[in-house]
Amino acid sequence: MVLDRLQQLTHQVNASSPPPHPFDPLSTAEIDTVVALVRNEHGKVNFNAVSLFEPRKAEMMAWLESPQTAPRPARAAEVVAIAPGGKVYDGIVDLDQKKVIQWQHTPGVQPIITMEDLQEVEHVVRQDPKVIEQCGIIGIPKEDMHKVYCDPWTIGYDERFGTDIRLQQALMYYRPHVDDSQYTYPLDFCPIFNAETKQIIHIDVPPIRRPLSKAAPNNYLPAAIEKEGGFRQDLKPIHITQPDGVSFKMTGRVIEWQNWNIHVGFNYREGVVLNNITFNDKGNVRPVFYRLSLAEMVVPYGNPEHPHQRKHAFDLGEYGGGYMTNSLSLGCDCKGAIHYMDAAFVNRAGASTIVKNAICIHEEDAGILFKHTDFRDESMVVTRGRKLIISHIFTAANYEYCVYWIFHQDGTVQLDIKLTGILNTYAMNPGEDTHGWGTEVYPGVNAHNHQHLFCLRVDPNVDGPNNTVFQVDAVRGPGEVGSPENKYGNAFYAQKTKFSTPREAMSDYDGSTSRTWEMANTNKLNPYSKKPVCYKLVSREVPPLLPKEGGLVWKRAGFARHAVHVTKYSDDQIHPAGRHVPQTSGEPSQGLPAWIESAGPDSSIDNTDVVLWHTFGLTHFPSPEDYPIMPAEPMTLLLRPRNFFTRNPVLDVPPSFARSPSQVAAGKSSCSSCSGKGDGSSRLV
Amino acid sequence: MVLDRLQQLTHQVNASSPPPHPFDPLSTAEIDTVVALVRNEHGKVNFNAVSLFEPRKAEMMAWLESPQTAPRPARAAEVVAIAPGGKVYDGIVDLDQKKVIQWQHTPGVQPIITMEDLQEVEHVVRQDPKVIEQCGIIGIPKEDMHKVYCDPWTIGYDERFGTDIRLQQALMYYRPHVDDSQYTYPLDFCPIFNAETKQIIHIDVPPIRRPLSKAAPNNYLPAAIEKEGGFRQDLKPIHITQPDGVSFKMTGRVIEWQNWNIHVGFNYREGVVLNNITFNDKGNVRPVFYRLSLAEMVVPYGNPEHPHQRKHAFDLGEYGGGYMTNSLSLGCDCKGAIHYMDAAFVNRAGASTIVKNAICIHEEDAGILFKHTDFRDESMVVTRGRKLIISHIFTAANYEYCVYWIFHQDGTVQLDIKLTGILNTYAMNPGEDTHGWGTEVYPGVNAHNHQHLFCLRVDPNVDGPNNTVFQVDAVRGPGEVGSPENKYGNAFYAQKTKFSTPREAMSDYDGSTSRTWEMANTNKLNPYSKKPVCYKLVSREVPPLLPKEGGLVWKRAGFARHAVHVTKYSDDQIHPAGRHVPQTSGEPSQGLPAWIESAGPDSSIDNTDVVLWHTFGLTHFPSPEDYPIMPAEPMTLLLRPRNFFTRNPVLDVPPSFARSPSQVAAGKSSCSSCSGKGDGSSRLV
Repeated sequence: MVLDRLQQLTHQVNASSPPPHPFDPLSTAEIDTVVALVRNEHGKVNFNAVSLFEPRKAEMMAWLESPQTAPRPARAAEVVAIAPGGKVYDGIVDLDQKKVIQWQHTPGVQPIITMEDLQEVEHVVRQDPKVIEQCGIIGIPKEDMHKVYCDPWTIGYDERFGTDIRLQQALMYYRPHVDDSQYTYPLDFCPIFNAETKQIIHIDVPPIRRPLSKAAPNNYLPAAIEKEGGFRQDLKPIHITQPDGVSFKMTGRVIEWQNWNIHVGFNYREGVVLNNITFNDKGNVRPVFYRLSLAEMVVPYGNPEHPHQRKHAFDLGEYGGGYMTNSLSLGCDCKGAIHYMDAAFVNRAGASTIVKNAICIHEEDAGILFKHTDFRDESMVVTRGRKLIISHIFTAANYEYCVYWIFHQDGTVQLDIKLTGILNTYAMNPGEDTHGWGTEVYPGVNAHNHQHLFCLRVDPNVDGPNNTVFQVDAVRGPGEVGSPENKYGNAFYAQKTKFSTPREAMSDYDGSTSRTWEMANTNKLNPYSKKPVCYKLVSREVPPLLPKEGGLVWKRAGFARHAVHVTKYSDDQIHPAGRHVPQTSGEPSQGLPAWIESAGPDSSIDNTDVVLWHTFGLTHFPSPEDYPIMPAEPMTLLLRPRNFFTRNPVLDVPPSFARSPSQVAAGKSSCSSCSGKGDGSSRLV
Repeated sequence: MVLDRLQQLTHQVNASSPPPHPFDPLSTAEIDTVVALVRNEHGKVNFNAVSLFEPRKAEMMAWLESPQTAPRPARAAEVVAIAPGGKVYDGIVDLDQKKVIQWQHTPGVQPIITMEDLQEVEHVVRQDPKVIEQCGIIGIPKEDMHKVYCDPWTIGYDERFGTDIRLQQALMYYRPHVDDSQYTYPLDFCPIFNAETKQIIHIDVPPIRRPLSKAAPNNYLPAAIEKEGGFRQDLKPIHITQPDGVSFKMTGRVIEWQNWNIHVGFNYREGVVLNNITFNDKGNVRPVFYRLSLAEMVVPYGNPEHPHQRKHAFDLGEYGGGYMTNSLSLGCDCKGAIHYMDAAFVNRAGASTIVKNAICIHEEDAGILFKHTDFRDESMVVTRGRKLIISHIFTAANYEYCVYWIFHQDGTVQLDIKLTGILNTYAMNPGEDTHGWGTEVYPGVNAHNHQHLFCLRVDPNVDGPNNTVFQVDAVRGPGEVGSPENKYGNAFYAQKTKFSTPREAMSDYDGSTSRTWEMANTNKLNPYSKKPVCYKLVSREVPPLLPKEGGLVWKRAGFARHAVHVTKYSDDQIHPAGRHVPQTSGEPSQGLPAWIESAGPDSSIDNTDVVLWHTFGLTHFPSPEDYPIMPAEPMTLLLRPRNFFTRNPVLDVPPSFARSPSQVAAGKSSCSSCSGKGDGSSRLV
């Protein structure tokens, strides 16, 4: 019967034409095929992940170069499964051959905690006698256990329990009423859940107890707002419309827009993955990035009191930015003329699932693209810009991360992240001192200091795969004031430091030199500037990892020790905190530190296929205005072409208004899109 | 006859009702009155500036507190005039009493260079025999002198000529055709213009000559683009409309919007000035800022070769961000439902002039304001945000500065600046080495390294005028890894350093601690956090002044020596590089350093009326994609309320979508604005 089902699925896959792009995520039919193949060979396992096994780069580059003649990269899936007894298997399934081509037991690891894993903890917690006992101690009677909630987190790493048992820690809360926000009522103890036995195996109880808060609820949902006086009435609608349609074209998952060409992928872990990003420079299709993604993140909390050191979520590596992605809604999450894409996953039982509208693609007006007026004659040009935004939003327990990949017409790629959602909260007694490790954002609610550190993985392909990374510092020129070479002291220049080895490339941010990093192709010089074509990373929100060297977070989040790491490309190096992150001890550190050690910290990364790993983010000291739900806090970084083009690449965007000196002299004006009508929709008020 | 005219003007002023708000810029009628009064008493002078003499703060605070009972601050104008012989006069005219109440000769200064001052240089240059001779030397025949152009700049400071003679330096260019961009043809010599005698008094000729470039033109105006293949055709319109009108209300120049109340001023120097900014916190109107403006800027160039050290424009203090402001056009500069304000100035001859549509005010959608989904039950809220933008754009010779004062619903004030326009260029020979001081952006075109350093003047009024400034650094907690107080090494906190004196307050940016600065009212603690209510300056583009200590720019631009200075409020301290900036030697330094010296660097700024001066900006190493016109480069900073509100102040913004746990359980949803229709205008594509 399994084989029948398999044939039927195979048929579905084959019937779909054209074949998927090699970068396309697995379809539900493909996921079903993979599951059937695995079941057929390996029997009953729980599925943790079934995702595209990405084409090997060498094959893929060859195919992208000449899709007609080069062999099409094999279509394959990577599988993570948990067999009875908690044995973790990593497998690869060839979808062309319909064959499990790799299946290995990986001991001593814990794969990602899925939404299903998270969902089951609360029910167990409510039933557990020891939890009920602890609830009683802080003032919650047994009959109110249905009002007890928990946000299950991976345990991070707790040396008392190690890695072998699959664990979650339950951050405990209480809701007086089902519609109240539980974050106003954090409980002071923390049960540990064994995912294999579905039991609470331990409870961490603090030395000082904190009875359930008696504060009034602090809610954000409409019923509460209505009760407090209702919603403001003074907002008039803003309509954003594209009556003639959008300016981008989708072919499958490939977007063409304003000279950009981008394949939009998605996986359970990184969420949006952008591949084979090229820019059509006057007919010359130039590669820019082979792959861009947010590859990892860590959110360390700054309270040293036990067991808060365990709060340092790797939201991508431990839970999955794809798995936690929101189904977006039109006019709410996304405004304007919107193209959506769905995301397909597997569930524990092996059924394919779909999150509808997981990715939002749309254009936005971007204000002035360029403008100049000649002061002597009022000749001028003003041209408005556009941006293309590819976004998704994921919910990591209390927090929301809104991720916007923004493409500009001028060749700039921008990554914007908005943080919203709800602060992680912990209980505090009236008058208790936070010791500076957190802020009382509401009576009884201690929101701990924390960092959000993201790891952007950039696989540059700047006019080809062989690239070199430079650090660029704005520094003062030599010569003291008064010296012949610097008489007035005004000399300054861009000091470039080539990173020849991964060791040299471990670099930190330096605000005092406005440090940037360039991904350059030293084999190709700009004909005018004689400098290598490059893309420059301009990132200004780059705090250091505040947890100390040698400590738990430092060990587990090796990628976050520096703002930039550079490695030689390797097909298997995608996840900078390691492939299976939950319950890693950091001894030795997985991911980036291990790869650099193994490749040799002094091996060459000069003029070869490199990957740049950039850790950026922010340090958040909460305050009451962040509560009970946070107004979105924005963050941004840019990847800018420098010495890449021979001139401004957007000169051919139609201006909103322009007039030349001779037109001014003749009393005429030339205006492609307005000539008095403006843009056809703007109005005076 | 003068008196007749005066009475007539007086009548006009009196007839206008209601009286202007004390912060309102002078009307054209008021300017005309001032000019008539000055002429009447002091005869024929050339006018450099006639602008609002801002109300003294003590009087103004009293009037704002009780406009019905406190005396209305006197309406007055400040005047800068140049009498024959180049004598500079500073005066004050009382518009209520119709009287010149102050008129003093100010020796040894040069007031701002106006657009009229700039305009006259080019004509003189073209006629000057020595300039014609220099043109001939580099290959421009005499008959082509009409193709010679110049961007006149203040001379900055040149020790050979001092301060007494009013000078401009002419940066020389050539246009092969009247519609070509002259910046592609920089000339290598620099004439010095005496504004009093209207003569060229000197020409700086470099030791190495650079003949006129033979490169083809590099243009950006439509005719050139059409010739090169025309404009791209694939952009579909984006319409932004507000069919029911806007959500802000104007009363004169006072805007009410989303709990904000802001007076929008404008002057010839700073451009937009925002006064008496308050936030209505649930019926309690709380002062936030008394005054916000961009008060000064300096653009030092990094080439130490003579005479490029003179290129360090103080665009506000030497030319005026108001004087150079653009008349904005609907659907081009500004998109959507737009409210404009005009700006009134005086010209040299004493006539009032108007720049139509100098200030643009509009709302924009701001994406997600906050969002949270409860992972356990999919209860959720998603609310979209708005922003209110007050903007102007000014053209400083080659560059354009687009200034956006952005108000967010959550109490955040954002200042965005976009840099566009054209690089300042200098000539270079084929094969010439730039020595790293610039970039060859096109054959023969050397664009020098430069910084754009802006000085934001913040007069905080955070729940009252007595405020205290703190520096906040994100730092690691004490205790080594393994120690009892920091076993896992994860402790970190916000280290706050109070600035008790101006000396302590001279502080630099520190990216390694994500440094911010708080303007706090230590007399008022947040009831929950027990921390002082404050506004936090979050600014990440904060390069140091790269010209060296003791050098020319360092001396003249004292404000730029540190990222933050704090001074005790004084009515006359508005311009941090001094009142009259052109040709200051920096010996002694004017403005901030002088004020701090005179008040005493160790005087108290604790819990008193203070002003924070913030220097921010960027260092620009040009590249060919910035040429022949720069795609806009953005910069941003935030002023964020921290511990100011007791909770998120935007909970009452109507959500786009919301459903409570009990609604989810009952299969219902609550959605104020969409319930399936979205926002009424968004569409799937």
